[in-house]
Amino acid sequence: MTNIATENDTEHHAHLKPIALTMGEPAGIGGEVTLKAWLQRDHCKQCFFAIDDPDRLGRLAKKFSLNVPIHLIQNPLDALSCFATGLPVLPINKAIRETLGKPDSSLASAVIDSIEMAVSFVMSGEASALTTNPVQKESLYQAGFKHPGHTEFLAELANITTPPVMMLACSQLRVVPITVHQSLKSAVQALNQHDIIEKTQITYTALQKDFGIPTPRLAIAGLNPHAGENGALGDEETNIITPAVKKLQSLGLDVYGPLPPDTLFSERARQHYDAAICMYHDQALIPIKALDFDGAVNITLGLPFIRTSPDHGTAIDIAERGQAFPNSLIAALNMATDMALNRFQGQHKPLRTQHGQFSA
Amino acid sequence: MTNIATENDTEHHAHLKPIALTMGEPAGIGGEVTLKAWLQRDHCKQCFFAIDDPDRLGRLAKKFSLNVPIHLIQNPLDALSCFATGLPVLPINKAIRETLGKPDSSLASAVIDSIEMAVSFVMSGEASALTTNPVQKESLYQAGFKHPGHTEFLAELANITTPPVMMLACSQLRVVPITVHQSLKSAVQALNQHDIIEKTQITYTALQKDFGIPTPRLAIAGLNPHAGENGALGDEETNIITPAVKKLQSLGLDVYGPLPPDTLFSERARQHYDAAICMYHDQALIPIKALDFDGAVNITLGLPFIRTSPDHGTAIDIAERGQAFPNSLIAALNMATDMALNRFQGQHKPLRTQHGQFSA
Repeated sequence: MTNIATENDTEHHAHLKPIALTMGEPAGIGGEVTLKAWLQRDHCKQCFFAIDDPDRLGRLAKKFSLNVPIHLIQNPLDALSCFATGLPVLPINKAIRETLGKPDSSLASAVIDSIEMAVSFVMSGEASALTTNPVQKESLYQAGFKHPGHTEFLAELANITTPPVMMLACSQLRVVPITVHQSLKSAVQALNQHDIIEKTQITYTALQKDFGIPTPRLAIAGLNPHAGENGALGDEETNIITPAVKKLQSLGLDVYGPLPPDTLFSERARQHYDAAICMYHDQALIPIKALDFDGAVNITLGLPFIRTSPDHGTAIDIAERGQAFPNSLIAALNMATDMALNRFQGQHKPLRTQHGQFSA
Repeated sequence: MTNIATENDTEHHAHLKPIALTMGEPAGIGGEVTLKAWLQRDHCKQCFFAIDDPDRLGRLAKKFSLNVPIHLIQNPLDALSCFATGLPVLPINKAIRETLGKPDSSLASAVIDSIEMAVSFVMSGEASALTTNPVQKESLYQAGFKHPGHTEFLAELANITTPPVMMLACSQLRVVPITVHQSLKSAVQALNQHDIIEKTQITYTALQKDFGIPTPRLAIAGLNPHAGENGALGDEETNIITPAVKKLQSLGLDVYGPLPPDTLFSERARQHYDAAICMYHDQALIPIKALDFDGAVNITLGLPFIRTSPDHGTAIDIAERGQAFPNSLIAALNMATDMALNRFQGQHKPLRTQHGQFSA
């Protein structure tokens, strides 16, 4: 792991642009974990800068007794030279008053401003990747935000029409749910060949481009127990998933399935694929959080830029306590770094090696 | 772990009756793993006896070059004195010809005979517990078997009308699925308060009686992502699961939920409950097989006797090879022993200690 904080570090990935980190919901733990991630910069593979109100972060550091000098910067590249001695902060256009634990929809424009600035930096190439702190959708909705969520907003800013794909990844497993935030009943009803094919293709391309895997291997899960047992336990495998697998194979992708979901995530089974395509939210999220709750990173595939986020929410209820851990944010920043290295430097770091073993 | 094979071992649990092990499908790996479990008797906590054709097992031992003397016994207690020097076999009333890899419905009566004899021994108290090798339902159906499965047949032999409950257990987790072998769509439709309440009560009682946990704590999973997010992602939590949880609490059970399924099986979350009540097959089986594929044991709760089984099938396709592992059968035999010790000796071995830590 590369260490950015020691003398030769700022040189280490100096060829790589810094990572843009958004403010997220200011009533939550975003600011706190940002400060704590900088304190643990020995564990960060690349420098990052916050797009936030520098005064707010300074007050937070004082409130929680975190020794974090704040460096006001004017453009992303400035972060490279000052990261070793303080947290680089690129200012938003609004002062954020004390709001910890108390969401305030009048601050929504600042939350959105931070996201828009971050996207402009990754789109222009001034930042190598985007890591987002969590937002509180309710506060944004109250202020007139029209998008279903964070990711859809990013897709519009990036001017893409194909819906992005959510991946969760840790050192042992990568999963992609085909359906996400809907009831289980409606997820079963909504399952269709088109989505399986499109999201699998996006995943395949991302594994090549951002994960350094020249010929990805993808396992496609069944929907039903035992993958339907030839129709005895459900017909979605026969009618939807198997035709999608065949279509993907005919397009030259190395995919196999549908596989019995209960055995797909066992240690032995995991050695045979680079990512598992899952039919619903919990089929993907249950195994990865059972295996590595703190190490799981949320990645958005299919955007023109790299985007990761920590796998936790705003945690507004504990924001006043100062006890949040930055582990998940650091994992998200490091995942973004690994992906940027692959995309921009062509470095290959496959999770699954050619011998079917996982690298550390 | 108690070792049965050394000199003082047969005394160790001599106060505990031996475990009855059924033949299962003779075309599958049942005989092979039975012989191999005896060879690994150093890892078995209590002696067991096979209810099988002794000549068949002798031929299998020869075929696979397994050095297993066969001791013909006439009643279960004989196993205690001869287990150290050979596999005790209590004979069924039929000779089983060579059938590996080739299921033969004319042998169904022998498969059923083995199960009926085993049940009579656990019902009479001559055996302390029942461990079953897997059966091939198709072969039994062809011979006129009228029960949906193995467990339902055991329930009828035991003369109980309340359906038994399936639990899977390993050293890190115990799970109980409310719905089992049906499509995901029909499992969502079939979910109801009555089943949640009845199966949770049976689980609670079993944890007290057979797992030595005086005041079990049970986590009830939600059905939908994020446990429905107050109705935004499905209404089964509001309409079915929450009322069931309240009813169980009013009956004095220490249950809590419905909980977001994706975080329920994380290492931290697992420290707060003795078993997780799950709403469908894969919600229960995905996390336990992701965590410990080989150590997971299938347990049937709600029968008047203890019953465990290895968490694999007949594996007829590999039965000729002689390469099956007995790990899962040994885990099932040892789980049966632990349960029998609790039930008959009152020894308490909780998985979750009072400090929220798991014992080894």
